[in-house]
Amino acid sequence: MDIAAEKIVECVPNFSEGRRQEVIDSIVAEVTKVAGVTLLGVKPDASHNRVVVTFVGEPQPVKQAAFNACAKASELIDMEQHKGEHPRIGATDVIPFIPVKNVTMEECVQLANELGEEIAQKLNIPVYLYEEAAKTPARKRLPDVRKGEYEGLKHEITKPERHPDFGPAKMHPTAGATVVGARQFLIAYNINLSTSDVSIAKKIANAIREVKGGYKYVRAMGVMLEDRNIAQVSINMVDYTGTPLHRVFETVKFEAERYGVNVIGSEIIGLTPLQALLDAAEYYLRLENFDRKQVFEENI
Amino acid sequence: MDIAAEKIVECVPNFSEGRRQEVIDSIVAEVTKVAGVTLLGVKPDASHNRVVVTFVGEPQPVKQAAFNACAKASELIDMEQHKGEHPRIGATDVIPFIPVKNVTMEECVQLANELGEEIAQKLNIPVYLYEEAAKTPARKRLPDVRKGEYEGLKHEITKPERHPDFGPAKMHPTAGATVVGARQFLIAYNINLSTSDVSIAKKIANAIREVKGGYKYVRAMGVMLEDRNIAQVSINMVDYTGTPLHRVFETVKFEAERYGVNVIGSEIIGLTPLQALLDAAEYYLRLENFDRKQVFEENI
Repeated sequence: MDIAAEKIVECVPNFSEGRRQEVIDSIVAEVTKVAGVTLLGVKPDASHNRVVVTFVGEPQPVKQAAFNACAKASELIDMEQHKGEHPRIGATDVIPFIPVKNVTMEECVQLANELGEEIAQKLNIPVYLYEEAAKTPARKRLPDVRKGEYEGLKHEITKPERHPDFGPAKMHPTAGATVVGARQFLIAYNINLSTSDVSIAKKIANAIREVKGGYKYVRAMGVMLEDRNIAQVSINMVDYTGTPLHRVFETVKFEAERYGVNVIGSEIIGLTPLQALLDAAEYYLRLENFDRKQVFEENI
Repeated sequence: MDIAAEKIVECVPNFSEGRRQEVIDSIVAEVTKVAGVTLLGVKPDASHNRVVVTFVGEPQPVKQAAFNACAKASELIDMEQHKGEHPRIGATDVIPFIPVKNVTMEECVQLANELGEEIAQKLNIPVYLYEEAAKTPARKRLPDVRKGEYEGLKHEITKPERHPDFGPAKMHPTAGATVVGARQFLIAYNINLSTSDVSIAKKIANAIREVKGGYKYVRAMGVMLEDRNIAQVSINMVDYTGTPLHRVFETVKFEAERYGVNVIGSEIIGLTPLQALLDAAEYYLRLENFDRKQVFEENI
């Protein structure tokens, strides 16, 4: 089998149930019953009353699993009864698709459109498209789409500017509404400095973050690591294909020099797509004509 | 399935038949019939009268496939009739095991010992251990083990210093003898210079190659790329775990500076283990506590 040609999409839906284990189990069972889908994680949070489910596979099985789970959640969760700390507008609150391997962002946007339409038609749930799948800038950011939460949107959905992208301009009586979209893989990346002066980390964070004139896909702040007595630039790389790791690392290095400070190390927290590290190796080794298929393991 | 825990060994046996396709097919069939083994390549060479077969899988199935193919070759190839340009001592001339994933060199040496013993016992073929599996320095290098080739070894095998590591001190009447061992994955790596003076590439090659006082696992020479009119340091990295890519790249960079020359790029020719590129990313990004399981694709 040519695994190198295999397409892999990640899907990380959030459901508004973090307490009743039997409900969580029923929703997850809808995912695992789909052939070709691999469940990577189930993280319930009781105070949020919410569960984050992570799975991967080829685009169509992943979409099928997302639809099944959404349908089951609409049967078992009643938003009229739901209480929790986390903002939400529906039983299936949000479904993002994330390109992992041999899949473009455009394909994930297409997948979001197909799923949104299917949820609206078959389940009669209004669907909003967000992030890369958003049809207007006003719906790009999730907090904007979720404004007013379930209780507020119930009334505001009839206003033209809050009409859903698919389905009726009327909340589903128990399942509410759902947000579907596509986004890049987020890499949590921290860079440690040879100083205990957190103000330097804050200045460097400002130099690289988008809102202060820095890189488009960088969110950053300066923090203190008390146990090591060093300052750290703590970063969310929201699109490593647009702003790569090496560019942020090198920029932090030369911004730190301004203060006579060195970078003593960096850390990737949690997971990273392989491509982000291959891109770093390719940059630093100045590789010419490098093809990912030259990685031995990509051929087996 | 926890693919991250899967062990993968590569095996690249060379058989002394590069002309009779039906013989090659029969040998290869012994490999592909073993469940869990993936055939990656079959490269016959008519003038060498030799075929190189590449396959991968878990250690035990890979060893089984190597044994089967060796047994078939001993039936179908008669060294008394064999002629070819490439040095060889047997029908199955050499069988190296190469660690690819979650496998240590020690495990590959163990595998070579097991296979060597099995070939000697069941097929009555004398077996020599080479490279990492060699029991004496004199048998580390393949050319030393193969000295005199089939025709010469037939007489010399009775001398104590040429006794095999397993099996009789007597050539198999048709299959000759076989060399089994373990070695690292070889990475063909070239570094291109901003000069058309090949003598600078040659001087830099001398600075990094083992025989001239350079890095232990580096073979290098300076060559001219006529089509681009630039000089190149052409390198074989024979153990990237001992001498990593970044160290050679950085050394070539600072040795080139001595001549006012820059490194304009580097190239990996053919395949590289993923780990070699992860090691480069880890070095340049100064990653702390990096674990390969943080690569998303290692979990699916």
